[in-house]
Amino acid sequence: MEPNQGQDRGRAAGRLLLVAATHGNERNAPWLLEQWRRRPALLASAGLELELVIGNPTALAANRRYIERDLNRSFAPELLADPGRQELEVQRARELLRQVGPAGERACPVVLDLHSTTSGMGNSLVVYGRRPADLALAAAIQARIGLPVYLHEADPAQTGFLVERWPCGLVIEVGPVAQGLLQASICRQTELAVEAACQSLAAAAAGQLRLPAGLTLHRHIGSLDLPRDDQGQPAAAIHPLRQNRDWWPLRGGEPLFWHADSTAAGFMPSDASREQWPVFINEAAYGEKNIALGLTQRERWPCEASWVEALQNCLCHA
Amino acid sequence: MEPNQGQDRGRAAGRLLLVAATHGNERNAPWLLEQWRRRPALLASAGLELELVIGNPTALAANRRYIERDLNRSFAPELLADPGRQELEVQRARELLRQVGPAGERACPVVLDLHSTTSGMGNSLVVYGRRPADLALAAAIQARIGLPVYLHEADPAQTGFLVERWPCGLVIEVGPVAQGLLQASICRQTELAVEAACQSLAAAAAGQLRLPAGLTLHRHIGSLDLPRDDQGQPAAAIHPLRQNRDWWPLRGGEPLFWHADSTAAGFMPSDASREQWPVFINEAAYGEKNIALGLTQRERWPCEASWVEALQNCLCHA
Repeated sequence: MEPNQGQDRGRAAGRLLLVAATHGNERNAPWLLEQWRRRPALLASAGLELELVIGNPTALAANRRYIERDLNRSFAPELLADPGRQELEVQRARELLRQVGPAGERACPVVLDLHSTTSGMGNSLVVYGRRPADLALAAAIQARIGLPVYLHEADPAQTGFLVERWPCGLVIEVGPVAQGLLQASICRQTELAVEAACQSLAAAAAGQLRLPAGLTLHRHIGSLDLPRDDQGQPAAAIHPLRQNRDWWPLRGGEPLFWHADSTAAGFMPSDASREQWPVFINEAAYGEKNIALGLTQRERWPCEASWVEALQNCLCHA
Repeated sequence: MEPNQGQDRGRAAGRLLLVAATHGNERNAPWLLEQWRRRPALLASAGLELELVIGNPTALAANRRYIERDLNRSFAPELLADPGRQELEVQRARELLRQVGPAGERACPVVLDLHSTTSGMGNSLVVYGRRPADLALAAAIQARIGLPVYLHEADPAQTGFLVERWPCGLVIEVGPVAQGLLQASICRQTELAVEAACQSLAAAAAGQLRLPAGLTLHRHIGSLDLPRDDQGQPAAAIHPLRQNRDWWPLRGGEPLFWHADSTAAGFMPSDASREQWPVFINEAAYGEKNIALGLTQRERWPCEASWVEALQNCLCHA
C-alpha cells in the first residue's frame, strides 16, 4: 500500500462531518474536537477528510442543552421549511444544512453526531430508522468494537433529529457522565467510536467493507415516565437495581421504580409475553420530556449486501 | 422510656431546619423533603421538630443552580446588609433568615443544608470553620455512620455559605449524581445522614451526647484548576485514575490530569513534604469557579468536652 492511499480513499469517500455540542451542556465531544483541530494526528481518521463543527455554539457558551428549543429535535423538514419559525436553533439547523449539509457549501454525505448522556449507556450507537446505509455503518462499527445499537423509530413524540437530514448518519452516545463535565473516560470512548466509524467508512469507500453475519440491535418499542403524584411530581425514582443498568433485560414484575418508603413498583409490560431492554435510564435531559427510560426489543438482523451498496452509493455520489 | 419522651426532647432542642434545593438543579433533597412532608413517619427524626424549607424555589422550578447568583455564596453579612444588592438570591437569603433564621419568625438554631455533587464524594459532611458546635455535631455523626468530613476554611475566594448564618449548621453532600437527576441511592444516603444528625441532636438536647475520642477531618488547603490553554479553555481533563476517587491521598508526581494524547500531568504540590487529599474532584458547578478539585490535609483531632457544651448551648437557648 502506498503511503498516501489512505488519503486517496478519504477523498473518494467525501467528507465526514463530525458534529459536537449539538447539546451545549455535553462538553466532552466539543473538547475533543478542539484537540483534534489543533493536532489532527490525535485522531486515527483512516485518511478521511473531516469537517469538524460545533452544533450549537451559543448553547455551548451558555453551558445549556439549548437556548430556545432542542437543536436535535429541530431538523424536521416541515419545521425547516416554515418561514414563521425563527427560533435560534431552527436558524442554526438551516445554517448547518447550508454549510455542511449533503448539498451544502462544504458538502458532507455522512455525519456522526457526538453526544453524551447521564444514563449508563456506555459507548453506544443510535440509528434513526432503517436506512440501509446507516445499518451498514452500525454493523461495521459493531463488528469492530462491539458497540450496542439503539434503533430509534416509530416515535411520534420525538422527531426532527439532526442525522436524518444527511444521507447517512449515526449518533454516538456515551455515558454516564453529568452534564457540563469533562471526563477522560468519556472522551476516550467517543474517540474509539469515531475511529471505528472512520475505518469502516474508508473500507466502504475502497470497496473493501465486509459486514458480519448479523447486526444485534435494540428496537424502540416505547418510553416510560416515572410514576407521578396528583401534582405531576415524581412519586418514585428509578429503582437502584436498574440505575446504570441499561441494555439488560427487564421482565414483568421486576422492580423498576423505588418509593421513598423503600417499596418497589414492578415493571408492567404492555406486552406480557416478552422481556424488554431498557435504554437511556434516567437521562437528566429527558425529565422535561417525561421520559424515565426507553424500552426496546433486542433483535438480531442478518446483514444484507444491499446495505453496503447503499453506503458506497452515499460515499461515491458525494 | 415514655412513648412521648422523644417528642419532649425534640421540643427542648428547638427546631431543626432542613434546607433542600439551595441549588435548584440538585433535585434529590427537595424530592425527599416533599416525601417527608406528606408522610413524616418516613424520616426517623428522633422526636425533633423539623422545619422543611426549599432554599431556592425559583431556581428549582427552572432546574438551574441559581438565577442571578449562587444562593450558597449569598449569606455574607456585608452583602446581606447592603441595600443596593437586590439580586433574587440575596433577597431570598434575607427572607430565609427572617423566616427561619436563628432570630426568625419560626426560629431554628440548627440547620442542615442538603446538597448533591457530580463528584464522587459519597455520603459526606462539610463544616465551615471551626465552630465547636459544628465540630460536635460532625463528630457525633461520624461516630454513628462514619461519614468523611471536609473542613472548609481560610478560602477567601469562596465565602457567604448559608450554614454560617445559623449558630450550628452542616452541609450534607452526596455524590456522584448528575445535576437535574433523581437517583434512589443518593436519596437513601441523604436520609441516613439526616437521621444520624437528628439522633445526635436529640442526644445532645437530652444531655446524653458522648463524643468519640477523635474526629477525622480533611482540612482545606487550596484548590486546583484544570490546566488551561492560551484561550482559557481546558488543556486537559481529570486523570481517569482520579475520577471518582475523592478522599484518597495524592502524592507529588502522581497522575492528576489527562491530555488528549493520553499523556499525564503529575500532581505538583506546593508543599512537597506531604500527601494531600483531593475532594470535590470534577464537580460540574465548579467549572465556572475554575476549581477542578479541592486539596485537603487529613487530620485527626481529639474531641473536646467544650464542643458538646457549645452544641447544648445552641439547642437550649433556642
